[in-house]
Amino acid sequence: MRSSLARVSRQLSSRQLSTKVGFVGLGAMGRHMAANIAASGTPTTVWDMSGDAVDFAVGKGCAGAADAAGAVAGADVVFTSLPRSVDVEALADALVAAGALPKNCVWVDTTSGVPDVSQRIYAKVADACGAKFLDCGVAGGPKGAEAGALAAMVGGDADALETASPVMAHVMGKVVHVGPSGAGHAVKSVNNTLLAAHIWVAYEGLLTLAKLGVPMETALAAINAASGRSLVTEERIPNHVLSREFDFGFALDLMRKDIGITMDTLDAIDMPAPALRVVNEMFCMGEAKLGPKAEHMEVVKVLEDMCGAQIKKAD
Amino acid sequence: MRSSLARVSRQLSSRQLSTKVGFVGLGAMGRHMAANIAASGTPTTVWDMSGDAVDFAVGKGCAGAADAAGAVAGADVVFTSLPRSVDVEALADALVAAGALPKNCVWVDTTSGVPDVSQRIYAKVADACGAKFLDCGVAGGPKGAEAGALAAMVGGDADALETASPVMAHVMGKVVHVGPSGAGHAVKSVNNTLLAAHIWVAYEGLLTLAKLGVPMETALAAINAASGRSLVTEERIPNHVLSREFDFGFALDLMRKDIGITMDTLDAIDMPAPALRVVNEMFCMGEAKLGPKAEHMEVVKVLEDMCGAQIKKAD
Amino acid sequence: MRSSLARVSRQLSSRQLSTKVGFVGLGAMGRHMAANIAASGTPTTVWDMSGDAVDFAVGKGCAGAADAAGAVAGADVVFTSLPRSVDVEALADALVAAGALPKNCVWVDTTSGVPDVSQRIYAKVADACGAKFLDCGVAGGPKGAEAGALAAMVGGDADALETASPVMAHVMGKVVHVGPSGAGHAVKSVNNTLLAAHIWVAYEGLLTLAKLGVPMETALAAINAASGRSLVTEERIPNHVLSREFDFGFALDLMRKDIGITMDTLDAIDMPAPALRVVNEMFCMGEAKLGPKAEHMEVVKVLEDMCGAQIKKAD
Amino acid sequence: MRSSLARVSRQLSSRQLSTKVGFVGLGAMGRHMAANIAASGTPTTVWDMSGDAVDFAVGKGCAGAADAAGAVAGADVVFTSLPRSVDVEALADALVAAGALPKNCVWVDTTSGVPDVSQRIYAKVADACGAKFLDCGVAGGPKGAEAGALAAMVGGDADALETASPVMAHVMGKVVHVGPSGAGHAVKSVNNTLLAAHIWVAYEGLLTLAKLGVPMETALAAINAASGRSLVTEERIPNHVLSREFDFGFALDLMRKDIGITMDTLDAIDMPAPALRVVNEMFCMGEAKLGPKAEHMEVVKVLEDMCGAQIKKAD
Repeated sequence: MRSSLARVSRQLSSRQLSTKVGFVGLGAMGRHMAANIAASGTPTTVWDMSGDAVDFAVGKGCAGAADAAGAVAGADVVFTSLPRSVDVEALADALVAAGALPKNCVWVDTTSGVPDVSQRIYAKVADACGAKFLDCGVAGGPKGAEAGALAAMVGGDADALETASPVMAHVMGKVVHVGPSGAGHAVKSVNNTLLAAHIWVAYEGLLTLAKLGVPMETALAAINAASGRSLVTEERIPNHVLSREFDFGFALDLMRKDIGITMDTLDAIDMPAPALRVVNEMFCMGEAKLGPKAEHMEVVKVLEDMCGAQIKKAD
Repeated sequence: MRSSLARVSRQLSSRQLSTKVGFVGLGAMGRHMAANIAASGTPTTVWDMSGDAVDFAVGKGCAGAADAAGAVAGADVVFTSLPRSVDVEALADALVAAGALPKNCVWVDTTSGVPDVSQRIYAKVADACGAKFLDCGVAGGPKGAEAGALAAMVGGDADALETASPVMAHVMGKVVHVGPSGAGHAVKSVNNTLLAAHIWVAYEGLLTLAKLGVPMETALAAINAASGRSLVTEERIPNHVLSREFDFGFALDLMRKDIGITMDTLDAIDMPAPALRVVNEMFCMGEAKLGPKAEHMEVVKVLEDMCGAQIKKAD
Repeated sequence: MRSSLARVSRQLSSRQLSTKVGFVGLGAMGRHMAANIAASGTPTTVWDMSGDAVDFAVGKGCAGAADAAGAVAGADVVFTSLPRSVDVEALADALVAAGALPKNCVWVDTTSGVPDVSQRIYAKVADACGAKFLDCGVAGGPKGAEAGALAAMVGGDADALETASPVMAHVMGKVVHVGPSGAGHAVKSVNNTLLAAHIWVAYEGLLTLAKLGVPMETALAAINAASGRSLVTEERIPNHVLSREFDFGFALDLMRKDIGITMDTLDAIDMPAPALRVVNEMFCMGEAKLGPKAEHMEVVKVLEDMCGAQIKKAD
Repeated sequence: MRSSLARVSRQLSSRQLSTKVGFVGLGAMGRHMAANIAASGTPTTVWDMSGDAVDFAVGKGCAGAADAAGAVAGADVVFTSLPRSVDVEALADALVAAGALPKNCVWVDTTSGVPDVSQRIYAKVADACGAKFLDCGVAGGPKGAEAGALAAMVGGDADALETASPVMAHVMGKVVHVGPSGAGHAVKSVNNTLLAAHIWVAYEGLLTLAKLGVPMETALAAINAASGRSLVTEERIPNHVLSREFDFGFALDLMRKDIGITMDTLDAIDMPAPALRVVNEMFCMGEAKLGPKAEHMEVVKVLEDMCGAQIKKAD
């Protein structure tokens, strides 16, 4: 009995040790994910268009490859973290055309992607070489990526997720399997659109109270002890807006990209959503005024500019 | 040292025992608050237009009075829980005219009131007999009232709140002093408007996912592990909507009243708030379709009716 | 036969000549209305808080009075053109208290008024002395007033309107009896809210085309030859915006006042109106940015500021 | 001098007689356009997937072809009236591949098309055979098509439009050249989105007045004499809604398609347009409730259902 358990344990251990990871896309999120996987002792080969990004990852223990095909060669689990779903699809097309995608590998795409493009990639790579594509929406930002504490929402096959889970555990604190292919990116974009909505309605409500002379800390304390609370009133505003530092680290154009995926989804399924549409318009105005690289929480300035009050610590 | 502590304790105890409470308005909220105060051993005299309501409170240990003046006679702390601020103002006018409001009493008004009416009452009763009016927004619903676990947001004088706090502690789990007269009702109405906004945007987002085939429990689990979470996604929808029971116990017209107070406040201070205005319209449509006494969470049916999906447990 | 016609003509002429008018409120609109009535040969006695305003009217042939009671003394038809309905009600209360309102006179109130306040005044003055109050919404602005070409929407009794019509004809090109007391002000405020909505949606649509490089004159010509046309695309934008003169002469705060009356009416009758609410928010933002005395058409600048295009003549 | 004029006239006449037209797409609009062109004596060869549609056109004097290539063979001016821009692009691709598109012909596309797809077709057919593609948005509905009184907004080259103008004159009462390729469809979709906005805001405003007891005919008369007027208040509602016949003949899904083109354009150029977005949501709700083939004016029923009033003739 004991020896049997020990054998299984040895097998599991050797399986995990033998897992090889290929990682393509080393931006603000990807570089930290790759570094954390390598830090766990898992062999991790990386590629990015930017040589500096590759150097960063190599400095954290990854192996550098000359191109994307080199990064994924022989990998059991492939990770991608790219700007857009069309970039992931282009990569998939190129790897398939070159026969470079490992047979039966699991592909974890952490790009903030578009549900129907992900469904298309899922079918293409399964057809080409039995690869299993998981659309994996992640939340938590660069800090969550660095801390290995991202929250993941995964669409695709359950057995593929089971295979990738031990590696994913090095970068993700929570992993939820939310449904079939496409569901991961859909839930991610809806989650971020709800976040955007909670940010904007909190701004409207709090600035109303600010104009009435209510101190912001006490308003937030009351709301957080009552029913109007959200992650925004509990964390984002107290930690990143009251100080006027706007130092969360998530750019407005990336937030708008996630909202935009939800808007496209609404269009595609003829779903009425008047409140989320208005939130989209407000962030659209925000980017028009503040530029794409403003911090996402800075949209408050559009409204502050119109009402003469501010969300800040009491003097 | 010990005897000194014992003496202070005795004093505190006798002070609390000697506090007399008058309570006017024994509706779904008021009756439980009065019962909890009486249950603490505090002498509590009550009145309501409805004899049944008075009977309920008497059954819980309160003393019944023949009229409002009788209920407040000799009280140190007066509580009101009435439909609207104008009812509280009418009561204040009548008690002042009759000289029935006890000198220097503290008046805790738990009505979902209107900031500027509360400010007017504050000034009137201070002028008439030195009474101190606290506008005390409460959150938590009838269940919170019954459990003595309401969250209170109080506007008015800090010393008056200190005086009333020991009695308030019997019905309120959290009490936050949010600012001068009017601020309690303002924060309450904004809190409830944020709640309404969180409800509606969650409905828009979740029904989008439901149309895409994502199970509601997994969507909620993912969102609650990520950044889109609110009290609504963590408690209201899992506990009261997924089951299709809609059994929270807060009627749509009462919710709309709170939102309406915020809308009036926006008008009064010329504050732009496009997203909260749209939320108001959606609840207005909800009441038009479902009637005033529908449960507030039932507004989801307006949207479900338009998209052919439902927020419910997976089959 | 001929002598009979001549007799009727003499009677009509003498009836009209014998009509005496009292006019209170000589602002940008009132002064021109009073001047046009006096210019018709009708004896017109006026009063305003501003001596300059009275001097203007006297210069146009009116008689000046020392106070409002003096202006209406002996009048068959009383006109008012005041800032708000509450001012009209205060005047009515004062005249009634002083017994200064002529028995059975007809009172034409051209103030941009509130329907339910007008209904209250209607009842008060009928009770006091049989006076007939007409709530008379007018459109056309100061230029329309000066040209005697205002459009009037009148609520109240048909026979009273018939009595006042010959005098009203000197300042109004079109008079429509729209319903019972209150209907005139209601239709006026809804009309102006539709105008505001047409302005704002035209701005959104035209700036979209401007960003695509379509010349504004041709876009307007096409729309005006098709189904998207309104008074705004046919007159306001071609005549007052393309030139960037913004010279129509209707201030933003007055426009917002009319919209506000509609918003209050929506509140009062629980009417959902999501699009008109959003228009209200946009004009609220406009006043916040541009100030109350900006021209109403200048709200375009809020949107231009966000999209980098302008509605102007092609270079 | 006289003989010279006669010669020019003969030349013009012979040029017009010699113009040959090919027409593809004989739906509710196309069949009437083709019939009117044939009725002018211009040789017109037609094709449609539906044999019934071809029979109708042949009955009106057109010649039937066996396929699209047959319809356009030898044509100087090609007309299309297809469901969507992608259908036009597929036709263009097929004709180009088959070498069936006449050299240097002018192609007038009256489809409610998408600006950037039209720009793509413009380039493709110019490259292939020097054909000149005009994107020609038309307004007026089937009745306008039948009466030969459509309003056209044309994007593309001015000289191509000049060539096609004599033929277009047989079906279009007004033709406006609005800009380069794409501009015609852009102006058309914005025009129809403004129409939709005017419809919806008129419904919100008029139902408010209906709830107050104002007769609809008098409300419309007043608004049409004042500044709130649009084509909707002057024609659509009086002629097609007051009677409750909803007999204009433009289906809700077609209206939504035009609005959708504008929404896509807003997305593409990052243009904030909060009011038009809300209008889109209201029509989205309308189609969800009434189905795609409801008349576009019937969206009023969504709002009537929520407010208990109706826009109809007084009893």
